[in-house]
Amino acid sequence: MQAYQRIKKQFKKLAHLQYAQKILMWDEAVVMPQGAGPYRADAVATLEGLIQKRLISNKVKNCLDQASSEKQHLSTWDRANLQWMEKKYQLAACFPSTLAEKLTKAKLISEQAWRRYREQNNWQDFLPYFENTFALIKELAQRQSQILQLGPYDALLDEYAPGFTQGQIDAIFSELKQKLPTLINKIREKQAVESVKKPQGPFAVEKQKSLGLQIMKSLGFDFDHGRLDTSHHPFCNGIKEDTRITTRYSEEEFTSSLMGICHETGHALYEQGLPVAWMSQPVGMVHSMAMHESQSLLIEMQVCRSQAYFEYILPLIQASFGQQDAFTAENLFKLNTRVLPSYIRVDADEVTYPLHIILRYELEKALFKGEIEIKDLPHHWDEFMQKYLGLSTRGNDKNGVMQDVHWPSGAFGYFPAYTLGRLLAAQFFASFKQQHPQFEQEVRQGRFQTLVQWLGKHIYSLASSLPTGELVKQVTGKDLETGYFIQHIEQRYLG
Amino acid sequence: MQAYQRIKKQFKKLAHLQYAQKILMWDEAVVMPQGAGPYRADAVATLEGLIQKRLISNKVKNCLDQASSEKQHLSTWDRANLQWMEKKYQLAACFPSTLAEKLTKAKLISEQAWRRYREQNNWQDFLPYFENTFALIKELAQRQSQILQLGPYDALLDEYAPGFTQGQIDAIFSELKQKLPTLINKIREKQAVESVKKPQGPFAVEKQKSLGLQIMKSLGFDFDHGRLDTSHHPFCNGIKEDTRITTRYSEEEFTSSLMGICHETGHALYEQGLPVAWMSQPVGMVHSMAMHESQSLLIEMQVCRSQAYFEYILPLIQASFGQQDAFTAENLFKLNTRVLPSYIRVDADEVTYPLHIILRYELEKALFKGEIEIKDLPHHWDEFMQKYLGLSTRGNDKNGVMQDVHWPSGAFGYFPAYTLGRLLAAQFFASFKQQHPQFEQEVRQGRFQTLVQWLGKHIYSLASSLPTGELVKQVTGKDLETGYFIQHIEQRYLG
Repeated sequence: MQAYQRIKKQFKKLAHLQYAQKILMWDEAVVMPQGAGPYRADAVATLEGLIQKRLISNKVKNCLDQASSEKQHLSTWDRANLQWMEKKYQLAACFPSTLAEKLTKAKLISEQAWRRYREQNNWQDFLPYFENTFALIKELAQRQSQILQLGPYDALLDEYAPGFTQGQIDAIFSELKQKLPTLINKIREKQAVESVKKPQGPFAVEKQKSLGLQIMKSLGFDFDHGRLDTSHHPFCNGIKEDTRITTRYSEEEFTSSLMGICHETGHALYEQGLPVAWMSQPVGMVHSMAMHESQSLLIEMQVCRSQAYFEYILPLIQASFGQQDAFTAENLFKLNTRVLPSYIRVDADEVTYPLHIILRYELEKALFKGEIEIKDLPHHWDEFMQKYLGLSTRGNDKNGVMQDVHWPSGAFGYFPAYTLGRLLAAQFFASFKQQHPQFEQEVRQGRFQTLVQWLGKHIYSLASSLPTGELVKQVTGKDLETGYFIQHIEQRYLG
Repeated sequence: MQAYQRIKKQFKKLAHLQYAQKILMWDEAVVMPQGAGPYRADAVATLEGLIQKRLISNKVKNCLDQASSEKQHLSTWDRANLQWMEKKYQLAACFPSTLAEKLTKAKLISEQAWRRYREQNNWQDFLPYFENTFALIKELAQRQSQILQLGPYDALLDEYAPGFTQGQIDAIFSELKQKLPTLINKIREKQAVESVKKPQGPFAVEKQKSLGLQIMKSLGFDFDHGRLDTSHHPFCNGIKEDTRITTRYSEEEFTSSLMGICHETGHALYEQGLPVAWMSQPVGMVHSMAMHESQSLLIEMQVCRSQAYFEYILPLIQASFGQQDAFTAENLFKLNTRVLPSYIRVDADEVTYPLHIILRYELEKALFKGEIEIKDLPHHWDEFMQKYLGLSTRGNDKNGVMQDVHWPSGAFGYFPAYTLGRLLAAQFFASFKQQHPQFEQEVRQGRFQTLVQWLGKHIYSLASSLPTGELVKQVTGKDLETGYFIQHIEQRYLG
């Protein structure tokens, strides 16, 4: 196993450099002075080119070739590790490091442009940056599709949700498209007669932050290996040893930042729960964005948007912001499960949320089929929003096609991971609840260890050792299906 | 000039990676969760090894060899640039990248240990980390001394104050050792009969910070390319495009953080004033730590510790902290020019300060001559403190040998740069004042453009194009001497 041991060392070094890259990206989004943007893009691109070059070096290639003959002597984990290495090598090797540099720079520059122009609702000036990034992504997809023997868009999907193709996603989404509109109508009818009180602000940012930190702590976030900050678009970044989440605050209301923190904490618990022994190895990393989102959504949607959770945090809310009529667990729960078609995906309720994803997915498919063009996205967005959510975004690109950081930063094929993650979350949580029927009572008391330990044992600690399909089957006894999510919606909203 | 153009591209990429490294170091000192320390050290070391490897690659070597024959066609700046490249290559080539990695990791790990053990006043547990770093630094010095044809300690000095050797520094320091004690006595005698009022705290950190930001702005700090943060030990890090300074706050008093901010702003103005056209090239960088300190000390000591400056900031102080008897320009000036032998270098007044440096310099010399050992430093420190400043640090290593971040982080040979910088500052400022006798009046009004523009023209914009000796001569018409500093002390304290 000498070659395999040597290649492990190479990947350890690559992990160090990827960690450096993550810190540079965190810094760029959270603290970097704006004027440093273009130079930062150069630096990040140079580092990316270097990582790429190192990954596709002859040294790595030779080691991989030799290691493949050692396969039969390897443990299951080592074998899975080697498979990931081979895949990573092949996907990188088809994309020369100069192109990797160019794409990395383009992504960062168009993300920076997006921050600037979104605020101005200025699609036209953003467009050239965006088209440049998209052209490069298309080239990447073309090249990788040959390696993966998938269509170009499927190749991109494979990065964020390996194992899922358009075929499967179409089937899943078509079930949701069929069931959700009826559910939404029923729920809205029911909610129309319920009265909900809106808490009255302002809610000081410092107090929101301190409440957020309490929440993170109670969920089990390890502050010796992570932190909370503020950014334009909330995210979780970093590695097991250094997991960083962000949120954004509005003084007008506090539950959006709070639920955002719960969501990102779900991501962070996954990172922090990865197995120490496999740190820096591909098999020891978070499996995919679909799995990542399953963990954030399980915490946010299944746990933290429950009435039991609001019973737990009610006294903390009162201690932070005083007494208000709106501050009852029931009212806060109702407020945070209000179903209403809206413009912004990240603020959407969990019932209409998949429609936001389906809209993006269908636009991406059409883009990659060449049926529509980037420059016409605002028009198509408006059309789809009217179709799926009954809202028009004409002239309102800021809250339409320009609302998300994903496309500007080159993340095409990412969005389906949210809804796949949501379905996984519902299915995982159903299994957990079946084994731990007392959990709701624990939530009321602010005790989450049972859940986090269960997730640690069944999911976090498995890292990338199993394909998602196998993992779901192993944990829940069934293939992934929409039923658990639909059942959860029916119980929570119509039960 | 084809080879030279190619090598410029190589150095541009190296500058990107060094910028990445700087951000990782900033992050480590300012925001990184503590538990990430060991892994961060691995990552920084890997990146350093890579930078080193790239620098000493055959590609760079061949380009350099070819470029040397193009020298006669190059401009003065390009020639200076090529010389820096050659020097950097040679100094790196004598130190294999595996050793560079090892040293980088050791430095970061012992700096992390220092943060932990200094607080506990625990020399013994810190010692093994420190000895490890020192052994590697000695090896580096040995190897580089052969390239530079200097003794090992001189080789280290050359990194921080190129062009200065022990011979010259001995001569300069011996003048200071001769003149300062008499001056200190005279000043203390004079100050003994003056009454100084101490402002009464607490001074809220938020208000100190906002005052600091105002001060930075008025001095000309460009916030679009820089920021202010808090760290264990104040520093200025980054590059022209992204210059980051830090300070630390105590609620008990505010002038220490304020003067610290003035000092670091001086560093930052130098970085931000470097020539755009030469960004990413060795000749376009800050010349040396001696020059860097000359710019921070010029701003802090010559400008901001003057009575005129306190007249300018008095209303800002009052607006921040209200009215107090101690808040008069005269009293604040007296308070900030109080001469008193003390333990901590960074808090020392400018008259006793050089003695802190001389102590460190003499200990470093003795260490490199093998006359003393690392493990006995607390004893020697105490001895030297008693000799130079009349204070004992026995049992008080926290405020003795463990007070500075420099040695733990491997910066041996750095300290003399402070005093060389202080002398340069006095000499530069004397020239400026002669050309701009109205400047004191401008300071009273908070106008610093005349000075910053002058520094920009005569110093910042020259970057590393001239050796310090030539620069001093060009700017002031004379060689570096102690006279300007001594004269400044006499005028400010005994005039």
